[in-house]
Amino acid sequence: MQAQGGSVGRVEKCLFTFAEGDDALRLESGRRLAPVTLAYETYGCLNKDATNAVLVCHALSGDSHAAGYYSQSDHKPGWWDDYVGPGKALDTDRLFVICSNVVSGCMGSTGPSSVNPQTGRPYGLDFPVVTIGDMVEAQRRLVEHLGVSRLLAVVGGSLGGMQVLEWTVRFPEMVRAAIPLATTTKHSALAIAFNEVARQAIMADPKWSNGDYYDGELPQHGLAVARMIGHITYLSDEAMRRKFDRRLQDRCDISFNFEADFQVESYLRHQGQKFTERFDANSFLYITKAADYFHLESSWGRGSLVEAFSRAQCSFLAVSFTSDWLYPTYQSRAMVQAMKKAGLDVSFCEVHADCGHDAFLLPNPRLASMLGSFIGRFLEQEPEEVADRAV
Amino acid sequence: MQAQGGSVGRVEKCLFTFAEGDDALRLESGRRLAPVTLAYETYGCLNKDATNAVLVCHALSGDSHAAGYYSQSDHKPGWWDDYVGPGKALDTDRLFVICSNVVSGCMGSTGPSSVNPQTGRPYGLDFPVVTIGDMVEAQRRLVEHLGVSRLLAVVGGSLGGMQVLEWTVRFPEMVRAAIPLATTTKHSALAIAFNEVARQAIMADPKWSNGDYYDGELPQHGLAVARMIGHITYLSDEAMRRKFDRRLQDRCDISFNFEADFQVESYLRHQGQKFTERFDANSFLYITKAADYFHLESSWGRGSLVEAFSRAQCSFLAVSFTSDWLYPTYQSRAMVQAMKKAGLDVSFCEVHADCGHDAFLLPNPRLASMLGSFIGRFLEQEPEEVADRAV
Repeated sequence: MQAQGGSVGRVEKCLFTFAEGDDALRLESGRRLAPVTLAYETYGCLNKDATNAVLVCHALSGDSHAAGYYSQSDHKPGWWDDYVGPGKALDTDRLFVICSNVVSGCMGSTGPSSVNPQTGRPYGLDFPVVTIGDMVEAQRRLVEHLGVSRLLAVVGGSLGGMQVLEWTVRFPEMVRAAIPLATTTKHSALAIAFNEVARQAIMADPKWSNGDYYDGELPQHGLAVARMIGHITYLSDEAMRRKFDRRLQDRCDISFNFEADFQVESYLRHQGQKFTERFDANSFLYITKAADYFHLESSWGRGSLVEAFSRAQCSFLAVSFTSDWLYPTYQSRAMVQAMKKAGLDVSFCEVHADCGHDAFLLPNPRLASMLGSFIGRFLEQEPEEVADRAV
Repeated sequence: MQAQGGSVGRVEKCLFTFAEGDDALRLESGRRLAPVTLAYETYGCLNKDATNAVLVCHALSGDSHAAGYYSQSDHKPGWWDDYVGPGKALDTDRLFVICSNVVSGCMGSTGPSSVNPQTGRPYGLDFPVVTIGDMVEAQRRLVEHLGVSRLLAVVGGSLGGMQVLEWTVRFPEMVRAAIPLATTTKHSALAIAFNEVARQAIMADPKWSNGDYYDGELPQHGLAVARMIGHITYLSDEAMRRKFDRRLQDRCDISFNFEADFQVESYLRHQGQKFTERFDANSFLYITKAADYFHLESSWGRGSLVEAFSRAQCSFLAVSFTSDWLYPTYQSRAMVQAMKKAGLDVSFCEVHADCGHDAFLLPNPRLASMLGSFIGRFLEQEPEEVADRAV
């Protein structure tokens, strides 16, 4: 399915460094991190009043490259190119779209593979465990650095959706609209379990060396297994049946050995292997831990989700997907109920999609249309506070 | 919940060796295996006409120890003690119950950890890949060795259920009643995917050494991760929430490091670790591969499940469980429809259970009552063929 609209074309990754010297980033753990660099990209232009900025938050394996191409030889555009571009749901003819790599990531932002200024060597496990709140705190610095005091919208799926939710209660005055997709206010035991097994797969790899592997061989076997585990949870029974069923891989019959007989096996092996070429095993540990720790009602509502959302001042569009069994619809429903009880303006849609949790990453005309019209509401309407201030 | 009925008391593991010399077991792969030993246990007494024998087939990590205790100091009875014993669903006052460890297992039956008579060393990966059909072929030798030409019933869950199904079409004249529980006629892509990732976790462990590890250290890290992956698929979202939710392990707050913060994490680590003390990593590879290869309609019906079941001559009681997402009810329904189209006598029940795939292993009064009354039908009714022959 081809997405409507055009491409943002050629883009560049930018770096923003802050918290140098004494102005360290204070983390939820109580530790400090300095300096902090965020890799980010922007698409479209910020308007005169700086009222058209949309922050896109990426999921576990994503990065700042949400749309466009780095060079003409790029085969693939950014990870959300179906939704970000001229005439697309996030219309870059009208919006200024920002996307940054999370703190603890490995795509240009400061993370465990970055050099620890105190030792001159990569942090490894000396990197502090960061939370979704810490990621959002760093994003706030970037947003303000870009001249934006209030975001028209924050949008993201999965781990990106957690960042969206955190934004709405941590910096309520900075968010007009929030779009959490395929996400949850807290990981279930099942979601924690999958993350933990993936982490154990990495930590079981002797090359992981307690996180201190940057000078030698990388724990690629462990990371590949971790990615394979994750990958299964992003698909669905139905999607896997349609995509693979029991079809054999390049052979007429089963092999009676331990090679990949079935297409689904070679697909997973390939996905695991490919991931190791672009992702840092320690970043995988840190980001999954941040997701497991995320617990909105505990952090902001003394155990009450309604109390947590009472802090928010924005409008919400929440979206879940029918075949997402990692963050099933019942979790989104509970979230939306709490938002309503907190008196918030919230729209909710469960989108029919048989492709599992990953649905928010795939082209979907219904999702595109919902995003476009929801964001459109805020583009057309002059923000009250800014209008007041302008008087 | 305490199961009704008594205990079979003290039991012993027995060994039966066949296919010695030239009489090798011909495997579906075309290879031959000799000699073959099966570890087995029996409970209750075979009646004079040998018409009261029930074969219990175990699942992936099970063994021949289905009921009773090996010694007074045993803390736990056999794995299906809730259902096998005097006055229980499989009433050992009336039935002669047999359970054997599958070929390729590691609990006494011939498998990759057994000594290869041609080399004097453990088989390792020289052990041939066996199928569910091969497991059943070996069981037939045991059953006949025990003086049983026709089983009153074959019963088992999961991989055990696959063996039950295979029995009904491979040796139709030997089975009066079949009870496949929480099983499928073929692995979905999702089920293959989980098995493959678990295998990859083992094979990623350098100590696995291409399966040749019996003289040195065992691939325990890889096997533990494999078990953790499997364990998640045996539970359910609901069961994990009830059992663990987000409760922390022996601490008041999150650790901000990579220790096990949550109870579900330490539970999985414990399950993984415990498994390595009793299970052979290569056996895990072989048994999961047999499960992935199982494809009843392809092996016996030229692609048609109805044609495959047309071979069967027994009555069926098929049971699925509401929260089993590894072999969901829709798979059992498809199986039961094919049985009906093949003109078979089949009862089907989807049992409400929120504990996931493992439900068939746990005490469940509804399941016990169904098993008991279904088997009772055949105990009370003199088998026609035997009666004919007796005339």
